[in-house]
Amino acid sequence: MVDPRISVIDERLKRISRIIAVSSGKGGVGKSLIATTLALTLTRKGCKVGLFDLDFTSPSTHIILGAKDAQPKEEKGIVPPVIKGLEYMSLIYYSRDKATPLRGADITNALIELLAVTRWSQLDFLVIDMPPGIGDAVLDLIRLVKRIEFLIVTTPSQLAFETVKKLANLLQDLKVPVIGVVENMKTKQAKSIQQQTEKLGLAFLGEIPYDLKVEEAIGDETKLLSTVLAQKVKEIAKGRLRSARR
Amino acid sequence: MVDPRISVIDERLKRISRIIAVSSGKGGVGKSLIATTLALTLTRKGCKVGLFDLDFTSPSTHIILGAKDAQPKEEKGIVPPVIKGLEYMSLIYYSRDKATPLRGADITNALIELLAVTRWSQLDFLVIDMPPGIGDAVLDLIRLVKRIEFLIVTTPSQLAFETVKKLANLLQDLKVPVIGVVENMKTKQAKSIQQQTEKLGLAFLGEIPYDLKVEEAIGDETKLLSTVLAQKVKEIAKGRLRSARR
Repeated sequence: MVDPRISVIDERLKRISRIIAVSSGKGGVGKSLIATTLALTLTRKGCKVGLFDLDFTSPSTHIILGAKDAQPKEEKGIVPPVIKGLEYMSLIYYSRDKATPLRGADITNALIELLAVTRWSQLDFLVIDMPPGIGDAVLDLIRLVKRIEFLIVTTPSQLAFETVKKLANLLQDLKVPVIGVVENMKTKQAKSIQQQTEKLGLAFLGEIPYDLKVEEAIGDETKLLSTVLAQKVKEIAKGRLRSARR
Repeated sequence: MVDPRISVIDERLKRISRIIAVSSGKGGVGKSLIATTLALTLTRKGCKVGLFDLDFTSPSTHIILGAKDAQPKEEKGIVPPVIKGLEYMSLIYYSRDKATPLRGADITNALIELLAVTRWSQLDFLVIDMPPGIGDAVLDLIRLVKRIEFLIVTTPSQLAFETVKKLANLLQDLKVPVIGVVENMKTKQAKSIQQQTEKLGLAFLGEIPYDLKVEEAIGDETKLLSTVLAQKVKEIAKGRLRSARR
């Protein structure tokens, strides 16, 4: 039997122009920070933006945004609270701070549930903070969210880029559009990641220097938007996400 | 029906004195580097050591060790190759560099299979590079590997430590022994992680400074063992893993 919630998902997402999945091959590369900053940046440019934290391995955008006390409203589904100008929804509202982990099937179930119940407005962009890697949840999201486009975050580390290759191969096999790859936490000049990215047939979107100020800006969006990271994200958005239409 | 491989696992692990699971709440905190360095350090001290990479999200110890071409041998099970003085086994031998991800049940199956077929010698220590977080694979390993002890890696970032709290709560609920918490990639003096760790009732094992030399040492164990990271890992091993008996 087909889960009736799956047809509801298309309905829920149809008023959203572009759905940007900020992803990484492994954790700890700054994916959540870049997703949050991208969403805030697009909001400040006058776009209508949603931020959807589906990183069940370590949901953290609520901490980055300083959105601890906000709560979604139940009203023929779930209406996301507006936080710092953006519509915000997170798995954290589902799992709270339970230590009890969600098992595989429960994760899929939680993802379907959240996608099916969340009532977004008419949005120019929905930015999704994806689970890292190429596990079940990523596959489920590709299946459930039809118009998803990937923006991949890596660091200069070989260890991170090896996992990007796997993610890129998977997305290419599944014919999922990839906007490109951002190199975060850069500590010295080197073109290696750019070259390897282009060899994969993907666009290299730019470099973001390693920046200690980012940690201090966690929970404070004004500080966050004044970091070098935010400046770089703004340039990427200007170059690649100019239009709310694909 | 009980999987017959599960009773084989106890048999396979019974000649190992201590099983150290190097873990983290999220990826990108240096878990694989610390697991590999710890295994190498214990080997250099004259212990018999195995390193088992079960981080299916991004297996990387083979890259860190420079063990690309080594292969396990089939002989009444699988005999791990000896690499840089340690017995080495990795999920990578199972999954190769396939882009195709393992789905939940397949991961559990791969873990059971690997634990059941790998023939370790009599070892003082088996160091496991664990999957990050508190997902299925971590729960499965806790269930399958009876005498497992956790060594948790974090960074100074709030975002990393929030996930450590969840992992620590889970381990405490399940009564799994925790050796303690290491703070990696430290960039400035602060006692906040130490204090928060002690508040969780866990031992704080020490700090490792952020060290750009580590990236250059990937694939070269001599360089790796001469980093500040290795020096700190050695101190931790000396203080906390002195005895092969618990």
